[in-house]
Amino acid sequence: MAAFVFDLDGTLVDSVYQHVLAWREALEKVGLSLSVWRIHRRIGMSGGLLAQALGREIGHRVTGEQAKRLGELHSAAFVRYRDEVKPLPGARELLRRLSESRVPYAVATSSRLETARRSLEMLEIGPEVPIVTRDEVRYAKPDPDLFIAAARRLAVPLQDTLVVGDSVWDLLAARRAGSLGIGVLSGGYGEEELTRAGAFRVYQDPADLLSHLDEVGVRALD
Amino acid sequence: MAAFVFDLDGTLVDSVYQHVLAWREALEKVGLSLSVWRIHRRIGMSGGLLAQALGREIGHRVTGEQAKRLGELHSAAFVRYRDEVKPLPGARELLRRLSESRVPYAVATSSRLETARRSLEMLEIGPEVPIVTRDEVRYAKPDPDLFIAAARRLAVPLQDTLVVGDSVWDLLAARRAGSLGIGVLSGGYGEEELTRAGAFRVYQDPADLLSHLDEVGVRALD
Repeated sequence: MAAFVFDLDGTLVDSVYQHVLAWREALEKVGLSLSVWRIHRRIGMSGGLLAQALGREIGHRVTGEQAKRLGELHSAAFVRYRDEVKPLPGARELLRRLSESRVPYAVATSSRLETARRSLEMLEIGPEVPIVTRDEVRYAKPDPDLFIAAARRLAVPLQDTLVVGDSVWDLLAARRAGSLGIGVLSGGYGEEELTRAGAFRVYQDPADLLSHLDEVGVRALD
Repeated sequence: MAAFVFDLDGTLVDSVYQHVLAWREALEKVGLSLSVWRIHRRIGMSGGLLAQALGREIGHRVTGEQAKRLGELHSAAFVRYRDEVKPLPGARELLRRLSESRVPYAVATSSRLETARRSLEMLEIGPEVPIVTRDEVRYAKPDPDLFIAAARRLAVPLQDTLVVGDSVWDLLAARRAGSLGIGVLSGGYGEEELTRAGAFRVYQDPADLLSHLDEVGVRALD
């Protein structure tokens, strides 16, 4: 039986739009003015790559030092939004069902543990679940390092892990890791964008995935 | 030569994500808890339809009275976000180019004039440009009434108007009006969603449309 690796923001918790506006504030503070949809399309990437990619779109080279400063400004701005963040419909139930069915799972996020902690608590994730954050790998998504580390912690071969994510970067990283990618629309990407990035199946949100678990190889225990 | 009818939010001004979070606050205030991406996908619809459609998604029937209250709560919440709103890249330049090329254009929005006024001022739209708002028609998008009224004000047949919009609802309304729809990604929909809704061409934002105006029939004046 397979194992699952879940992205966090936009996949298990409803936080993408708040992250988008927090990044926008951070970028404005250093004089980078970007359309909000362009920021949205970079969420899920490592913060460093996000800053560089957005800089490139407006022809501005972002140094490592600036990227670090942007990350700090984003964290500071996000504090004002984080009380609005809630688990996505079905997220807790999905994780509970997997535990009951003895399907192992992990969480792998491009965020730092400090930023992710509240979301993990909200989801009532127990200490037995491996959590892999930005702090533990050299490169975050779309590099496959986070998913590779998660599979190792689960002691499951990469080709037997199902990666669930809301962003194109999750799905690209899943392909590079040699895992199957499952897309969810709850981060605000369109279905075709996720399919084109390699999702072998796309669901609306965790609740929708929960009610179709048999499509991806999880059978109800007798 | 054709005429243009522009949607406002997400098409000429960068305001969709702020509207999304303002609607979310309004919905929470009346006890309706919805994922943010579901709200995003309804922006551009008339407020009444948006409320009903979102209610339906969580199995809650929204009355006309509640929809009205929601609209008021949204307007009140949006006030806190509106200082962040800016014209999209190329929006002012695009409108200026059309004026210089003597291509008539109008703006047609599902918002009330009260909500839209600041955006129209920001775009430096002159009094010669017809503005059609929610106040003037019985049904807003995805009904075609706004675009029909705009074409009438421009005195151009509907089949000669090019409707530019960022949402699926703009493009559906354009098809119902018998106009050609042009999609822009600046409201955060994916390209394929807009194409599937009937866009005959999709650009990134007003700046991208401006640099491809010859593709949609506008020639530089000699």
